[in-house]
Amino acid sequence: MFLKLTLNGPKMNTIFSNITATVILNESGEVLNQTSNKSNKDFEKANVNLEKTAKKHKATSLNPKKDKTQLQHNLELLKDKDNFKAFYEINKEITKTQIKNAVNEDNIIVQTIACINELDKTTNLLSKRLREWTALTIPELEKRLSHHEKFAGLIKDKSRKELLKELELNENETMGAKLPEQDLRQMTLLAKQIKTLYELREEQEHYLESLMIDYCPNFLEIAGPTIGAKLFEHAKSLRKLALLPSSTIQLLGAEKALFRHLKSGTKSPKYGILFTHYLVQSAHQKDRGMVARSLASYLSRALKIDFFKGEFAGDKMREEIEKKFNYVKKEKHQTKE
Amino acid sequence: MFLKLTLNGPKMNTIFSNITATVILNESGEVLNQTSNKSNKDFEKANVNLEKTAKKHKATSLNPKKDKTQLQHNLELLKDKDNFKAFYEINKEITKTQIKNAVNEDNIIVQTIACINELDKTTNLLSKRLREWTALTIPELEKRLSHHEKFAGLIKDKSRKELLKELELNENETMGAKLPEQDLRQMTLLAKQIKTLYELREEQEHYLESLMIDYCPNFLEIAGPTIGAKLFEHAKSLRKLALLPSSTIQLLGAEKALFRHLKSGTKSPKYGILFTHYLVQSAHQKDRGMVARSLASYLSRALKIDFFKGEFAGDKMREEIEKKFNYVKKEKHQTKE
Repeated sequence: MFLKLTLNGPKMNTIFSNITATVILNESGEVLNQTSNKSNKDFEKANVNLEKTAKKHKATSLNPKKDKTQLQHNLELLKDKDNFKAFYEINKEITKTQIKNAVNEDNIIVQTIACINELDKTTNLLSKRLREWTALTIPELEKRLSHHEKFAGLIKDKSRKELLKELELNENETMGAKLPEQDLRQMTLLAKQIKTLYELREEQEHYLESLMIDYCPNFLEIAGPTIGAKLFEHAKSLRKLALLPSSTIQLLGAEKALFRHLKSGTKSPKYGILFTHYLVQSAHQKDRGMVARSLASYLSRALKIDFFKGEFAGDKMREEIEKKFNYVKKEKHQTKE
Repeated sequence: MFLKLTLNGPKMNTIFSNITATVILNESGEVLNQTSNKSNKDFEKANVNLEKTAKKHKATSLNPKKDKTQLQHNLELLKDKDNFKAFYEINKEITKTQIKNAVNEDNIIVQTIACINELDKTTNLLSKRLREWTALTIPELEKRLSHHEKFAGLIKDKSRKELLKELELNENETMGAKLPEQDLRQMTLLAKQIKTLYELREEQEHYLESLMIDYCPNFLEIAGPTIGAKLFEHAKSLRKLALLPSSTIQLLGAEKALFRHLKSGTKSPKYGILFTHYLVQSAHQKDRGMVARSLASYLSRALKIDFFKGEFAGDKMREEIEKKFNYVKKEKHQTKE
């Protein structure tokens, strides 16, 4: 266990802290912090222990020199086997409670986003395999249909004959080989699996949106679920996101370009993740940087409202920003005509 | 289209070849090769076209000089628009038929092996996600159970309460947070998905084994399904595997070490993929190279029997090699005692 010793300003309280917990003793050695779990007997015992021993050696002076001895003394108290064990038990309890209480919406949202990303990877990987595999028997389908999910759905639901008919090909025209039923069955099984993976992904997307509606409705309203998730993934928690300055939000996801700019003086980036936002996309090339900057400042406001549990104002803000940029857009068109 | 012109030995046939097909003309310009798809009218027409035009310019001498003019002439025939189109059509037909006929057990086995590998990746990725996710609510389970498939099965089948009971923990003792039902449901769904992915993997393993029993039973008998699949993956076809010298089979999968040996004179590797074979594993450290060498030569024999569709002799060969190395092993033990 690592013990750290600090003086807490002019009040001369002593803070005993290690990697797992902190105990504050006042000048007379009494335990001040009341983070104890009342139901836990060990904890109470430990408190009593510490207080009892502390009272025996009550400090009488505010003199720093004497205080230092007091601190040393308190440290010695903790070296006492019984006290040490009690202190250890307190730590363990506090840590457990902290871990338990640390689980909040942030964790769940981050996990869900990560899971959706991994489902994306998975479906892509397996879809490519399915395409290569089915190309042995019906290569024409692969080129006609580039949508992975629909492709898996077709392979799952239709027999080779039906697919050939849909492609308006007969057995002599196709370049695919006629394979025995058992070989085709494996492809169908894989397609089925891919289809259910896509279904799970969709389900989790809905779930993520419902989580975000409860947790950060203003942010979700303006950013939308996809970009919202990406920004969240970057910062890992609403707190961190809310504390970011608007200009950082604007450039999240463009770190490489930013540092290149700072190091070698290339052009500074104007947007990161926000580039795919519909407002930035619909803006004229020239205006995109400005739109992204403004969007980031709205997002920053929305995040602060969400973090401090303010009233829902996302719809109004969204209207405001849309009006603002539709206006700019219209003006552009008018000057062009 | 790329045209290549070759003289076919003393018979003075002309081979017209491009990237997709080859047409052989004899000295008098007649088409010799009969790879045509008889049912296809375009193809027949093309043949007739070529022959007709060729007959008009019948060669009369075997003199190389004159032959050269003949060749030039044949080339000019192909430059004729009609002939060129016919040639193109022949090529297309032949290519289609070749592609269709090229699909054989090799392709299907390679696809299945690749699919199993990708299912492995997928299940690993999603299992890790499931572990991280469920650690929010029941972190104790993660450390107790390292088997991915069993872990997913437990999460899928049991509620949090049941799991806590099994771990002999109560709500106050666990470090996991109590989450609402809808959050837990998403984990269960993911676990279910992982479980079915494992089931698909198992199904495909059985399928692969059944394919290999039909296609290369001797090889499968000696190598076993896992190592058999790995070797197959390396060579991509039975033909290529069967043509490999035994020493190459011994070192498949140890290419890096081999080239390091050749370049900078480090120790030469003794085994590649074969290292995990049970005979190599059960051998004494010192003998493993020798066992791998012998095993590779047996595998090479088995592959040749399989490729040339010989009688099944895998069981006898396996007995033979097992006897051989059990004998060596026993002798070792005896000399030690």
